[in-house]
Amino acid sequence: MQLNQDVRINLDRFWSTIEASALIGPGRPGGMSRLTLTDEDREMRSLFERWCTDAGLRIVIDEVGNMFARREGSEPDLPPIFIGSHLDTQINGGRFDGIAGVLAGLEIVRTLNDNGYETRRAIVIVNWTNEEGARFSPPMVASGCFAGKHQVSWVHDLIADDGARFGDELERIGYRGEQRCPGTPPDAYYELHIEQGPILDAEHRQVGIVISSYPSVGMRVKFSGETAHTGPTPMDLRKNALIAGARWLTAVDEIGWDFSVGDGKATGARLAAWPNKPGILSDYAQAICDVRHPDPVTTRVMAEKMRRAVFECAAIAGCKADIEDEWFWGGDIFDHDMIDVLHTEAERMGFDWRDIQSQAGHDAYFLATVCPTAMIFAPCRDGITHNNLESCEPEDFSAGINVLLHAAVARADR
Amino acid sequence: MQLNQDVRINLDRFWSTIEASALIGPGRPGGMSRLTLTDEDREMRSLFERWCTDAGLRIVIDEVGNMFARREGSEPDLPPIFIGSHLDTQINGGRFDGIAGVLAGLEIVRTLNDNGYETRRAIVIVNWTNEEGARFSPPMVASGCFAGKHQVSWVHDLIADDGARFGDELERIGYRGEQRCPGTPPDAYYELHIEQGPILDAEHRQVGIVISSYPSVGMRVKFSGETAHTGPTPMDLRKNALIAGARWLTAVDEIGWDFSVGDGKATGARLAAWPNKPGILSDYAQAICDVRHPDPVTTRVMAEKMRRAVFECAAIAGCKADIEDEWFWGGDIFDHDMIDVLHTEAERMGFDWRDIQSQAGHDAYFLATVCPTAMIFAPCRDGITHNNLESCEPEDFSAGINVLLHAAVARADR
Repeated sequence: MQLNQDVRINLDRFWSTIEASALIGPGRPGGMSRLTLTDEDREMRSLFERWCTDAGLRIVIDEVGNMFARREGSEPDLPPIFIGSHLDTQINGGRFDGIAGVLAGLEIVRTLNDNGYETRRAIVIVNWTNEEGARFSPPMVASGCFAGKHQVSWVHDLIADDGARFGDELERIGYRGEQRCPGTPPDAYYELHIEQGPILDAEHRQVGIVISSYPSVGMRVKFSGETAHTGPTPMDLRKNALIAGARWLTAVDEIGWDFSVGDGKATGARLAAWPNKPGILSDYAQAICDVRHPDPVTTRVMAEKMRRAVFECAAIAGCKADIEDEWFWGGDIFDHDMIDVLHTEAERMGFDWRDIQSQAGHDAYFLATVCPTAMIFAPCRDGITHNNLESCEPEDFSAGINVLLHAAVARADR
Repeated sequence: MQLNQDVRINLDRFWSTIEASALIGPGRPGGMSRLTLTDEDREMRSLFERWCTDAGLRIVIDEVGNMFARREGSEPDLPPIFIGSHLDTQINGGRFDGIAGVLAGLEIVRTLNDNGYETRRAIVIVNWTNEEGARFSPPMVASGCFAGKHQVSWVHDLIADDGARFGDELERIGYRGEQRCPGTPPDAYYELHIEQGPILDAEHRQVGIVISSYPSVGMRVKFSGETAHTGPTPMDLRKNALIAGARWLTAVDEIGWDFSVGDGKATGARLAAWPNKPGILSDYAQAICDVRHPDPVTTRVMAEKMRRAVFECAAIAGCKADIEDEWFWGGDIFDHDMIDVLHTEAERMGFDWRDIQSQAGHDAYFLATVCPTAMIFAPCRDGITHNNLESCEPEDFSAGINVLLHAAVARADR
């Protein structure tokens, strides 16, 4: 048995789930502010759970709150196919980033139910906890835990800016499950996501097949100085950690401009100092920056410049610097066979598709370390994300979800 | 009648009040963290009130919480002499900054009581609310209100970083008084303060007579950008307000170094951004910087460079900038006749004194706009203030308070 090649998903039904999601944790007009492990996150998880149960799926929660909604296959002992993304958003986020990927999985399952089609392998829709890292840093922490990159206890002990502990908040909203982490890798992982650069939209393409991702290096740095009066303290006796941090962000921004011709980017994303008040020099600053570039060697050069700048900027400000954390993402991480099938399906259905590189971080990056993984991008107006102006039409998702449906079912029947 | 020239204050008694104060709101070891309008501030105000009442003084509180403890003179209708400073501290403050000035006033009154001496004019000890600006910005806000620089309603509506409103906190701790602001200017204002640069300590001087203050210009700037994803957004489309702020702080620090040979200083004191998170560009940043230099013309040049940097840095970061507030302090603001008397008294008592310039902001700056004003500095180890390592010995205050005693009484008897 094989799924009829003419089967298509129900776009209106998919869109109605997007609209229902958009009511839970709205932020600025048109956007979302559904931070992980908040009451809004709980409400969305609960709605998602109800939809899945109504579709006949069995829900399992793991120790870090990842949700797995399983549609059984005819051979339950085979490793399943995962289709997932995340239901949390940035503090000023949009209605599609992450959410569309989870709800695409739901729509695929509903379509299979409509057609009474049983796959050989189970299909599991996954909602990864805290992809955004907007409340608990770092981002993608729970897919990282699933993939064995982080320890469960370390994840539970993360503290948010509001003082809350990850493990306590997970208990509070009732989504600390029993399933152990790291989890058992699936046969394959698919993630559909809106694009985050204005490429598909600018070229009026219907779907992007992600062939690789921009290598990226990030660092979290602590600068240590000494408090003193801002007035009389001579420049050469100052140890203002805020200035060390401001100089580092400035230097990293310059690196971004220096490499921008080759599409390099560098970001000063966070600078938090203490006491950070007029009248007193700050003795503490925490800063987070990253660099990325399509070429891995150039990324390494940018990262090395970013690293040297840490210590140069600290020295000018009379401070000490510690690189507290450093991370590397991306590269040629996606499965070539899965990419080939996506190409074939997009071509067969007559969609206007193109290969594309991913520039942002995704849960798929961690999954790619434990199983064959592929990503599909849907167009998004002007590529604007992490902003309430993020905007898509229903039709933007039609090609992507249908390609995902047929590729995932073909994989599930292998 | 004239105060016997041999009368001296009781240094042990003064020191015991310093030690009692140090128990209320201790911060890091040896320091203080007694932020304005907190429970600790209330406890200190209450203790000060009890000491004053025990010394026979009458307490009046004004609408912004300034405390006036009055020792009546033989001619109550004459404008009184004010001796004051502040009992609040920085978040990582010391035991003497501000506190010593208020408690010096108390010791002078107690000494007059011991000697049964009645002055012609009343002497009023003043505790100015929120000198530090560590909780509610700007600093010296309540002496500014007394001097007519700020409106009472504007002061009451100030919001702290912790979300508290000035007026509500004033009510809560029970120190919103009836006396109207702006207040009636006194005949003269004296403020004793520890030095904030290591000049007296380095030269082993007993007391500093403040002849002028470094002109200083400060600015609070808002940078406005747009949130967007840190990954794919090209450098030339970014509007990262955090980078605009970081670049401005860096530029201001460079101005400080450029003018440091002539003892210029420039400070990046605060940078707060939103959302200030990895993964997203910030659309808002607030930054506070200032410049100061002993020469007024050079200060103006530094300020102009600081102002130009606001817009240059905003432009590089693709952001808009608004200078929300700008302030100017200092210059030749102290009363020459009062300075002459301080010189005379210091010389008569045989102290090792020197003239000195004030580099920090003080309540005295606002008082100087409405009445003749003078300041006295006491030595402080290595000039370290706004730090828990701020350190003085009892003997550091002996010369300063005795000079203040005889100068203030001479003025009160005029």
